[in-house]
Amino acid sequence: MRYSQILIPTLRETPSEAEVASHQLMLKAGYIRKVAAGIYTYLPLGLMVIKNIEKIIREEMKRAGAQEVLMPMVVPSELWKKSGRWDFYGRELLRLKDRHKRDFCLGPTHEEVITSLIQSEIRSYRDLPINIFQVQTKFRDEIRPRFGLMRGREFIMKDAYSFHSTEEDAQREYGNMLETYKRIFERCGLKFRAVEADTGAIGGSSSHEFVVLAESGEDSIASCNKCDYAANIEKAVTKSRRYLPEEIETENVVEKVYTPGMRTVEEVTSFMSVGPEKLVKTLIYKADGNAIAVLVRGDHELNEVKLKNLTGCKNLDLADRKTVERVTGAPSGFAGPIGLEEMDIYADNAVQGMRNFITGGNEIDAHLKNVNLGDFNVKGFYDLRSVVTGDDCPNCHGSIELHRGIEVGHIFKLGTKYSEAMGAVFLDAQGVEKPVIMGCYGIGVGRTAAAAIEQNNDSNGIIWPSSIAPFQVIITSINPKDEDVRKMSESIYRSLIDKGVKALLDDRDERPGVKFKDSELIGIPLRVTIGSRGIRDGKIEIKHRLESKPVFIETSNVLSGILDVAGN
Amino acid sequence: MRYSQILIPTLRETPSEAEVASHQLMLKAGYIRKVAAGIYTYLPLGLMVIKNIEKIIREEMKRAGAQEVLMPMVVPSELWKKSGRWDFYGRELLRLKDRHKRDFCLGPTHEEVITSLIQSEIRSYRDLPINIFQVQTKFRDEIRPRFGLMRGREFIMKDAYSFHSTEEDAQREYGNMLETYKRIFERCGLKFRAVEADTGAIGGSSSHEFVVLAESGEDSIASCNKCDYAANIEKAVTKSRRYLPEEIETENVVEKVYTPGMRTVEEVTSFMSVGPEKLVKTLIYKADGNAIAVLVRGDHELNEVKLKNLTGCKNLDLADRKTVERVTGAPSGFAGPIGLEEMDIYADNAVQGMRNFITGGNEIDAHLKNVNLGDFNVKGFYDLRSVVTGDDCPNCHGSIELHRGIEVGHIFKLGTKYSEAMGAVFLDAQGVEKPVIMGCYGIGVGRTAAAAIEQNNDSNGIIWPSSIAPFQVIITSINPKDEDVRKMSESIYRSLIDKGVKALLDDRDERPGVKFKDSELIGIPLRVTIGSRGIRDGKIEIKHRLESKPVFIETSNVLSGILDVAGN
Repeated sequence: MRYSQILIPTLRETPSEAEVASHQLMLKAGYIRKVAAGIYTYLPLGLMVIKNIEKIIREEMKRAGAQEVLMPMVVPSELWKKSGRWDFYGRELLRLKDRHKRDFCLGPTHEEVITSLIQSEIRSYRDLPINIFQVQTKFRDEIRPRFGLMRGREFIMKDAYSFHSTEEDAQREYGNMLETYKRIFERCGLKFRAVEADTGAIGGSSSHEFVVLAESGEDSIASCNKCDYAANIEKAVTKSRRYLPEEIETENVVEKVYTPGMRTVEEVTSFMSVGPEKLVKTLIYKADGNAIAVLVRGDHELNEVKLKNLTGCKNLDLADRKTVERVTGAPSGFAGPIGLEEMDIYADNAVQGMRNFITGGNEIDAHLKNVNLGDFNVKGFYDLRSVVTGDDCPNCHGSIELHRGIEVGHIFKLGTKYSEAMGAVFLDAQGVEKPVIMGCYGIGVGRTAAAAIEQNNDSNGIIWPSSIAPFQVIITSINPKDEDVRKMSESIYRSLIDKGVKALLDDRDERPGVKFKDSELIGIPLRVTIGSRGIRDGKIEIKHRLESKPVFIETSNVLSGILDVAGN
Repeated sequence: MRYSQILIPTLRETPSEAEVASHQLMLKAGYIRKVAAGIYTYLPLGLMVIKNIEKIIREEMKRAGAQEVLMPMVVPSELWKKSGRWDFYGRELLRLKDRHKRDFCLGPTHEEVITSLIQSEIRSYRDLPINIFQVQTKFRDEIRPRFGLMRGREFIMKDAYSFHSTEEDAQREYGNMLETYKRIFERCGLKFRAVEADTGAIGGSSSHEFVVLAESGEDSIASCNKCDYAANIEKAVTKSRRYLPEEIETENVVEKVYTPGMRTVEEVTSFMSVGPEKLVKTLIYKADGNAIAVLVRGDHELNEVKLKNLTGCKNLDLADRKTVERVTGAPSGFAGPIGLEEMDIYADNAVQGMRNFITGGNEIDAHLKNVNLGDFNVKGFYDLRSVVTGDDCPNCHGSIELHRGIEVGHIFKLGTKYSEAMGAVFLDAQGVEKPVIMGCYGIGVGRTAAAAIEQNNDSNGIIWPSSIAPFQVIITSINPKDEDVRKMSESIYRSLIDKGVKALLDDRDERPGVKFKDSELIGIPLRVTIGSRGIRDGKIEIKHRLESKPVFIETSNVLSGILDVAGN
């Protein structure tokens, strides 16, 4: 296409409303425009990137044997009531009424619609397995939409749902999708990790997240420096370290210490001139209304997802001040395990290896030192903390590294949660009726585009991976009024198009500086510069967006030279 | 693809909920499934047809110089308030509130969103013209959604909007789109007419509808049997016939006739033993609250759209009984023009040629005969009736034919209606600020698929035009367990795929009768039948869906034979 014939409204200033690079650059480079909070119009360049990603996804999903359908965006409440999520799903589900006052929602995910279809259309194990996907606009009424396409309200998603007659077959398809997702994100040119993840509100027995590595990402993931273990921070397992006999201290006797106004780990341990690893934090929580205590080493963080999964409660909140005073007898900051007979005490594994530690005294301005495990009762020791850098890998002798990233895909083993609720059954080979076993598999298309920018940008703009770039090559005509320049530009442009290369011809009547700046801002991977001097010297300048210096190619070899560098 | 690996849930019975062929066949042949009234899931075959139509539309729109974007489905009320349509647009606009109680709607059309974008991004006449399109899911809360994809609530539409600095340029682009639409529907393999149409709620100065000819269509269109004049029934112009002097009767004197309980044209004219063309109907309407009278010949139908456009009123309704009694002094059925001094009387052109006609007497159980134009005053004579078969063509000496059809596209010259309301202005070459001049251009994608079926089906099922068929060729293996049959089927299937033909291999373990029936029901244009006998005889059977008899091709020439017939 020709630059003069595409709407690319680049901005001089970085929009102040945008906090992260992808949001800033998509606005500045004319890829998207905001219509309302979390709701955008995709301008021509933005839509080209989306379509490129969608094409890769479709090809790989079809190669993996999945079939494409399109379900509606406006979904009747009956389906969500059947699955139980009409009441359970929070306010991110945008509910609405039609002119006849019937209840509908804008689908944020489509387990209900697809399970209802399968319930009607599938009868026998012979009809299984089946994997059905769609690429669709979804809506999630985020309370604080932000970061542009990263956390929008209206967004494009690929969602797939598979149905099986046996656990083994569901597991096989899970593996198939895991490999398919790897191929998709590899083809998108992204550095990513597939990590074990918690299943959250979707449910099911296990799941993997696909996380694009980027410092600006909202997610933390843990991975081993030796083996391929990787999990998100909510899921990453900590290993309880074994202590050698010579490391074990002699147990001393509990001693009360006056700690006026000292409520934090930092305050108490500094005062006692020890490290935070010598203190046990006692956190009071309410699990479905019941107070519980949780013990974690002073330098560790409790992982609430692990605690929630362990207790099996539906609602988990830190206890309010009043509850803390009532159950510990002291204000917040002085809680300790000794004397908390009334409630369950859950301790993190790391606490098991501690001797002569510090705890709160359950009394204002008092802590205890030389506390030992024999001084109180716990329900048990569990993996309750978040991993930290340097932790032992749970699978090998390597150690854990932490990375920031952006979740772009998520796959789940759903089991029979939805099929049982919605009556999606099949007859097995013996004629016995059974609920179908499900998996579901999502990719955020717009978020993948945003993540690609977060991972690939510099102070001049975007640096697209070639496979998802709106154009692979930009031909910058310096002084297009020069007939030779115009002819050469047109000729190279035509030849590239004929070879199937997505080429953009910058035919605008603008200064070279403006053209160079725009080409870097919009992030086209390869720039071919055609000017009078180059033509006179018989050399054409080619510059990769990632390189600081251009290369020069003989005019006679220019086409093959570009194709070489473009990797076509 | 392989039949065994696609979800094609064909039904044995025609679903009773479906009234028209396209709705029945899309359900029966497994193309769509209903999720709620007017809301459907597109199953794999249905989505393939949609994608084929979208591809043709995209190619032709881009060839015509339009750029693709994607606007949101959820649109903030502010934009619709600016254009004035938030209050004006009826209940088909589905309004909703987000979690912060802000008003939004589901976009049924996107003039507001695009005009707001242009208002922000376009400054100068140098940025114009521009034509921007999208292919998007829209929502229109129809009071009675029906006929499947023909009049759904959630539907896929291509909508385009063009912006210009001069009237001439807007007119040029209108012509460009008219030609583009013709190419699109030709490539879709449809028999259609581009007809002049009323602009309706979208507004603007002129418009054309694209109507696919089909008996089951909801629209009536008029076309000339000699020239290329064509218009929809709301717009088609009637020509006032000139009367020769010898045709003009001598005027008699008005006479009252006792017509007890006779209120209809049929009752009165039978009683007087004359044809309906001897009576003038007097219809009482309320135009923005004011009573008006309209005179139409007894055998003609008033066209309310013409009356509304003539009077320029916003709301036009037939007067209620009370109003009729008040203004005529008699119950409904006895109104006549004589004595209606208080109100404007609009007469249809055909009334001007009448002599000694019958009217109501404005008195219960009374009509008048031998009424003539001198007996009352009219505001004027206008084109107010709908055309009928045999009317004179307004452009030539031909005569009008009426056809039924389905509106699949509509193009409008919008003028400055939206740009003025929303402040979308540009600076012209003299630096003067002017509102941009707009056009808009829509195609119902799902409706085009439905219209294709309405035009192309028989008692056995759908007969797709090859260009939009989900598959161009189906290879039906008779007894796929026979190794020769399996090998030959696979070999032809592979060769067709390699040649870029969309081929479906019916590899199911089903009886030949079932396979033949399904292939006709789902409407694949060409069937290649591979059986043991054919292989033994060295001949392959090829049958076009439209032909009743197959042809036989030598096994050695089978590929080129299929490609010949498939038109590839």
